[in-house]
Amino acid sequence: MDTALLIDDVRLTPILIADPPLLNIQGVHQPYTPRLIVEVTTRSGVTGVGETYGDGTYLDLARPLAEALPGHSVTHVNGLHHLAERVCGGSPAPEAGVDAGGLRGVRTAGKLRLSVVSGFEVACLDALGKTLGLPVHALLGGKVRDAVDYSAYLFYRWAEHPAGGAKDDWGAALDPAGIVAQARRLVADHGFRSFKLKGGVFPPDQEIAAVRALAEAFPGRPLRLDPNGAWSVGTSLYVARRLGGVLEYLEDPASGTDRMAEVAAGTDVPLATNMCVTTFPEIAGAFARDAVQVVLCDHHYWGGLHRTRELAAICRTYGVGLSMHSNTHLGISLAAMTHVAATVPNLDHACDSHYPWQTEDVITARHVFEGGRLAVSDAPGLGVELDRERLAALHRRWLDDDGTMRERDDAAAMRRADPEWVVPAVPRW
Amino acid sequence: MDTALLIDDVRLTPILIADPPLLNIQGVHQPYTPRLIVEVTTRSGVTGVGETYGDGTYLDLARPLAEALPGHSVTHVNGLHHLAERVCGGSPAPEAGVDAGGLRGVRTAGKLRLSVVSGFEVACLDALGKTLGLPVHALLGGKVRDAVDYSAYLFYRWAEHPAGGAKDDWGAALDPAGIVAQARRLVADHGFRSFKLKGGVFPPDQEIAAVRALAEAFPGRPLRLDPNGAWSVGTSLYVARRLGGVLEYLEDPASGTDRMAEVAAGTDVPLATNMCVTTFPEIAGAFARDAVQVVLCDHHYWGGLHRTRELAAICRTYGVGLSMHSNTHLGISLAAMTHVAATVPNLDHACDSHYPWQTEDVITARHVFEGGRLAVSDAPGLGVELDRERLAALHRRWLDDDGTMRERDDAAAMRRADPEWVVPAVPRW
Repeated sequence: MDTALLIDDVRLTPILIADPPLLNIQGVHQPYTPRLIVEVTTRSGVTGVGETYGDGTYLDLARPLAEALPGHSVTHVNGLHHLAERVCGGSPAPEAGVDAGGLRGVRTAGKLRLSVVSGFEVACLDALGKTLGLPVHALLGGKVRDAVDYSAYLFYRWAEHPAGGAKDDWGAALDPAGIVAQARRLVADHGFRSFKLKGGVFPPDQEIAAVRALAEAFPGRPLRLDPNGAWSVGTSLYVARRLGGVLEYLEDPASGTDRMAEVAAGTDVPLATNMCVTTFPEIAGAFARDAVQVVLCDHHYWGGLHRTRELAAICRTYGVGLSMHSNTHLGISLAAMTHVAATVPNLDHACDSHYPWQTEDVITARHVFEGGRLAVSDAPGLGVELDRERLAALHRRWLDDDGTMRERDDAAAMRRADPEWVVPAVPRW
Repeated sequence: MDTALLIDDVRLTPILIADPPLLNIQGVHQPYTPRLIVEVTTRSGVTGVGETYGDGTYLDLARPLAEALPGHSVTHVNGLHHLAERVCGGSPAPEAGVDAGGLRGVRTAGKLRLSVVSGFEVACLDALGKTLGLPVHALLGGKVRDAVDYSAYLFYRWAEHPAGGAKDDWGAALDPAGIVAQARRLVADHGFRSFKLKGGVFPPDQEIAAVRALAEAFPGRPLRLDPNGAWSVGTSLYVARRLGGVLEYLEDPASGTDRMAEVAAGTDVPLATNMCVTTFPEIAGAFARDAVQVVLCDHHYWGGLHRTRELAAICRTYGVGLSMHSNTHLGISLAAMTHVAATVPNLDHACDSHYPWQTEDVITARHVFEGGRLAVSDAPGLGVELDRERLAALHRRWLDDDGTMRERDDAAAMRRADPEWVVPAVPRW
């Protein structure tokens, strides 16, 4: 095989990016959040880029993988998983409980490793595509659509971070009118045709009122509400009854497969999840009990674009719907999300993306939504170009940080406003 | 995207290849069996090859797909399924009952279409790999092993076809001694380290005796027995009890998911299938009932190499074993089987292949098993080259055939020896 495709060098660049004061059950987003940019350079001098979580635990896993990679071919992405298992070892130890940073269900070493591998896999595919002159979607069997739908991701939010930091002109959104106004601006700016509200922030009746206000403002548009597992089974069913007519799906109303199965048994509103089905081993149990009707895929969670396609195949086979989850991310990951989404025939819901909230990026040309959609790029690789000056500046911010922002901790950020804040036990309501 | 990768021309070449008088529950292999060779040529003049079933019903589906393909990119193999659905229409009508040709469970139009698509997908991937200088496995995310294990495929057989035709020097194998002798020669020639006996030919006690003779001759080697669903639940359990200690798995002892589930509930011998789980819609029901413990993948059945990888992901997720099925095939398909097998981490059993029984081929350099394994080719595409003279000669045989060999019909072949023969109803024993 062509030695030009062998990896010569891997560069890891942790950065801090501005993030607005978006609220969720854990607290509030910090003024800056860590991301890790992965660059893989081949012997022929082609560089591919990837992006993943940038907290310390992820960096600790990424470093040995970066060291082990030179000499491997960028074509051999299936082998990344075995390599990562071998070189990343058992750190960190599996840990029960809700991940304060990612709201991604139970946190385990295996899940963190998959997220790290995803950044490397995307970088390899970008390098391969650039070398061959092919878009990443073509490396996954080719697109089956020319554009990918995204939904407007609505958040309760403050106007400013309690401790200062990056500012924007969105103002506060803390009631139905504020959420509708936010939705109108996102529609005006990006053309979104469906809406997701991050809930779990206020008592359920207030969030029901916000969704109802959205339904009135945007009649017939798909609406989603996601309280990140904040509710009891009873509350979940109460919300489902009150919003049954207007919800496309209800996302993680209750925490864990047991409660989700109970909720699902009591309502016709489809339940979606990115918390109780987040890894392959969690699928069989949840599907057998019909606990979820829609799985939110996320290539960072599931270990890359190939694994995301495998998840899609499982959902198709089991008659479970498929949508796409998003955490805070930049333009590299949005490109990767769009490429893999374009190849999946059964992606039957608009994808989530935090992207409109990210004012900073590391690519030279920001993605532009048209009618709420992103055109699928046919340019080589991901179709994005790294802005090295921006990357250096955001890395400098990471270097200069006193350590408070290098780990995303929404609860700590909340304590700047409310020193007594602790992450609420679930069910909260 | 590169217009050099657009398909310019598709050529379909039906052929007849020599086949020994191998016995199964349906009857006996004909002296010649039909295959279809698919050639896809890009605008830059690169030709990729694929291979699939060649019976008339497959040809009827392949022709409109071949006509529709020019202008499509060889990168866009995901789109082949939708294209085939559109252009192949509803012909032939879904048809219940056992496929007399392929022993592949219930025959439906959708299954035939998937087999046709598989030949085109492999041809596209071969052309793409040749264009890019990459092996097909690299187009599937890269190999995770450097060689693929195959098993010796043992058959009860006659020395000659009742109606004449192609001859070989293997002689008859109709009892335990004959099967052991056949196994010894296959081991001497190819180095196989595991064995599969095609059963359903003689009453179960005779086939039990043959497997026991193999266990004595090759102690500790994995052994499989496949009666193609010939047995009742009671007989299946009787055989499982008698062979429990020596079988790697028992393949399709009984017909249909209901009976397989009953058998599985009564034995610890793993049950494998290529008859009751042959399509994605059949998976959920069979897995939920633990009816099968090993699925035999087959890229011809499942719609290509990408779909085979999806099946593998489903089996991995559900803790179901994976092996590989084979029907009569040539070197093009063996190359495709080896490439996809090389990319699947959970292919935990040696693959089946009829290849040693095929004395004719359409490639210039026959595959060579070493220690029962095939090295995974790193040459561009599949790594095989079409022998146009041989292809033309085998096509001439197809053209010259009076129609009796163009449809594989093992029962008709058997009637040349036994005019009263009808395919036995199952369970036969």
